[in-house]
Amino acid sequence: MITTIILIKTEHAKINDVGNKLAELEGVSEVYSVTGRYNLIAVLRNKNLDDIDEIVTEKINGIEGIKKTETMIAYRLISKFDIAGMFDLGS
Amino acid sequence: MITTIILIKTEHAKINDVGNKLAELEGVSEVYSVTGRYNLIAVLRNKNLDDIDEIVTEKINGIEGIKKTETMIAYRLISKFDIAGMFDLGS
Amino acid sequence: MITTIILIKTEHAKINDVGNKLAELEGVSEVYSVTGRYNLIAVLRNKNLDDIDEIVTEKINGIEGIKKTETMIAYRLISKFDIAGMFDLGS
Amino acid sequence: MITTIILIKTEHAKINDVGNKLAELEGVSEVYSVTGRYNLIAVLRNKNLDDIDEIVTEKINGIEGIKKTETMIAYRLISKFDIAGMFDLGS
Amino acid sequence: MITTIILIKTEHAKINDVGNKLAELEGVSEVYSVTGRYNLIAVLRNKNLDDIDEIVTEKINGIEGIKKTETMIAYRLISKFDIAGMFDLGS
Amino acid sequence: MITTIILIKTEHAKINDVGNKLAELEGVSEVYSVTGRYNLIAVLRNKNLDDIDEIVTEKINGIEGIKKTETMIAYRLISKFDIAGMFDLGS
Amino acid sequence: MITTIILIKTEHAKINDVGNKLAELEGVSEVYSVTGRYNLIAVLRNKNLDDIDEIVTEKINGIEGIKKTETMIAYRLISKFDIAGMFDLGS
Amino acid sequence: MITTIILIKTEHAKINDVGNKLAELEGVSEVYSVTGRYNLIAVLRNKNLDDIDEIVTEKINGIEGIKKTETMIAYRLISKFDIAGMFDLGS
Amino acid sequence: MITTIILIKTEHAKINDVGNKLAELEGVSEVYSVTGRYNLIAVLRNKNLDDIDEIVTEKINGIEGIKKTETMIAYRLISKFDIAGMFDLGS
Amino acid sequence: MITTIILIKTEHAKINDVGNKLAELEGVSEVYSVTGRYNLIAVLRNKNLDDIDEIVTEKINGIEGIKKTETMIAYRLISKFDIAGMFDLGS
Repeated sequence: MITTIILIKTEHAKINDVGNKLAELEGVSEVYSVTGRYNLIAVLRNKNLDDIDEIVTEKINGIEGIKKTETMIAYRLISKFDIAGMFDLGS
Repeated sequence: MITTIILIKTEHAKINDVGNKLAELEGVSEVYSVTGRYNLIAVLRNKNLDDIDEIVTEKINGIEGIKKTETMIAYRLISKFDIAGMFDLGS
Repeated sequence: MITTIILIKTEHAKINDVGNKLAELEGVSEVYSVTGRYNLIAVLRNKNLDDIDEIVTEKINGIEGIKKTETMIAYRLISKFDIAGMFDLGS
Repeated sequence: MITTIILIKTEHAKINDVGNKLAELEGVSEVYSVTGRYNLIAVLRNKNLDDIDEIVTEKINGIEGIKKTETMIAYRLISKFDIAGMFDLGS
Repeated sequence: MITTIILIKTEHAKINDVGNKLAELEGVSEVYSVTGRYNLIAVLRNKNLDDIDEIVTEKINGIEGIKKTETMIAYRLISKFDIAGMFDLGS
Repeated sequence: MITTIILIKTEHAKINDVGNKLAELEGVSEVYSVTGRYNLIAVLRNKNLDDIDEIVTEKINGIEGIKKTETMIAYRLISKFDIAGMFDLGS
Repeated sequence: MITTIILIKTEHAKINDVGNKLAELEGVSEVYSVTGRYNLIAVLRNKNLDDIDEIVTEKINGIEGIKKTETMIAYRLISKFDIAGMFDLGS
Repeated sequence: MITTIILIKTEHAKINDVGNKLAELEGVSEVYSVTGRYNLIAVLRNKNLDDIDEIVTEKINGIEGIKKTETMIAYRLISKFDIAGMFDLGS
Repeated sequence: MITTIILIKTEHAKINDVGNKLAELEGVSEVYSVTGRYNLIAVLRNKNLDDIDEIVTEKINGIEGIKKTETMIAYRLISKFDIAGMFDLGS
Repeated sequence: MITTIILIKTEHAKINDVGNKLAELEGVSEVYSVTGRYNLIAVLRNKNLDDIDEIVTEKINGIEGIKKTETMIAYRLISKFDIAGMFDLGS
């Protein structure tokens, strides 16, 4: 399982539109509306690079209203993973 | 529960050091070693802004070898959350 | 009460338009027309992240003429707060 | 009364130090510890440009640990000013 | 008397147009056509921040062909300055 | 007479030092302490490029505490300029 | 034989289109769809600078959908070249 | 087999040193000394993300004289691959 | 004689067009099609700043297809000038 | 004959030192002290890429006081070349 993090800037009036379309895509695990210079952060969990390429290049980049993306692949998870806390996420 | 995402650049020889110290901090849920312009991405899940302030300002920024950070707070999770996939994360 | 500071670049001919629309929004406490690289700074005082998300993502980003925003949430006020001086603000 | 907003980056281990020293300065009304690319935002309320110059050039820039500042003067407050809400600020 | 310096980028075919319109504005003391990354530098001498706000926000930013501005207010003149010249300057 | 405008960033604790040294140099007409991303703006009035080169390359760049400079030569003054003031200006 | 590496940003919906057109050009040896701030990296192997100029200036820059390119010529290959591994590339 | 491309800036006096050390590392297929803003480009061919992480995080980032890296993973090779030409590469 | 160097970015499909139009202008001595972030570099040799202003502001900036220019004036030539080699230039 | 243009930033107190050392190098045709964000521009005329690599990587980058370089190779000269004017250059 490979984790990919994508920083996204959208057109100002389309943050929610883009966010909702991203969230519906298979392979996209989480989409956050965030503070700062970017509008959205998408987290993907995929089986291999071919799947990531298909989702990023064809599906995500085809969504209207995206102005800029920066894609980062996680080599590795350095972490004590707090599974319990995950269930409350965003609540 | 508030999710915070931090983009981190470290001194070149200290990526693993910083990554390990971040992963041990309470409130830090995941630390990824990533491709691109940054070296590490930390994901925090905290109860309130005071806790985030304490972790970011006092603990994370006190780790030696960090050169640059950009902190983004998630307002909201726009997502169908793939719980099943989460258990395999990073394996 | 959470304080949010937003740096805003607008289209050149729409600074006042955008400024006036921002000032009318509920949750927006102050809007400054400023020197430098940005045109406007908005200060928000809101109860929680959901309110900030709604104001920033739906209302502020829907205003026509905004080209770029950078949103910063204040974790904490480090301050001797000069209440007396506040009443004269901008006079 | 002139309002000045200063975006500040500090050395990573000195955010609180710098924040506390800023908050003690006469003419500095509020100091926020913030998310994003900057560490601190200081808000000044002063009588005239000479006072701002003295505070910014001599006092603020003399604080050890400041790496970068960007100073913006507010020409004007475009705002319905929510005085009632102000008293709860940061509580 | 407050001095304001504005760095301006214009559309490529409109440097002279924008320059001439700037030079005609009351409160604008000098306009230079310059080398480097910017096309024009305007120097303003005004009585107070309200005047600067009106000139910058309403008049200068309303000129067609301006793409980018960066406005800097001079706190203070550090200078062996020919005082005689000051009295006529920009008046 | 050629006008040169130099944007200057100094070390934080040396703004006044650098400003005073700049103001004492022959050929430097005005030095402003300014808001924004830069700390100082120097305006030079010189007879020819050789003089500008000597002042900029040898004298200004030899001042301790200067971190970054961006030098712009004015091709031309586009201006309703108070001609009377010109004769005294910088002379 | 001169190696040229080109970093390419395309319009979001045209990554594959541009990638396929690049791959068909004579003199273009490899085209990668990549993570990060760029969308594509093209590697060219050509006989001389005239050939590179023709391919880059006329053919590559004529492809619709390219927004930004940064072209780097390799002076020299510092390398133990793993020919065996090359045959498996991308499989 | 995963292809990784790394853009590298080194200290000015250490380009050859860093280049030679990179070329000796297992998993590093090619190292180019290049024109432009970067000094070196390394191309890696590895079996999986764990190997890339180890080479990039531990080995490459441990080389003295590296100032900045930007790592890009190729999702996919879009290419008619000119095998014949490969044998002459760099000769 | 004053030497001016101009870094130019053009629209992707218009590099040759812009290059040819630049080369035809009086006062423009050389135009290079270059690698890197820019597409063209123009070298001008002119008698005085007024001539440079006219060529840069009116003629060069009026050419359709230019997106960005950065103009640098040479104060001085620090050089053993290889006249003999000049005749072979570009051959 | 290949033309290479190098944009150079030096430490502030070492512009002349670096300029003189550059001018003495074989293969370096002209060195200009320039206005703007850079301090020096070097123009090289060399026979092939190996020579450029040796001069840039070993000789130029070994000069103390250089902070940043951006090297651009000219593919081609698009130009009516004003030979007559060349003899007066910089005089």
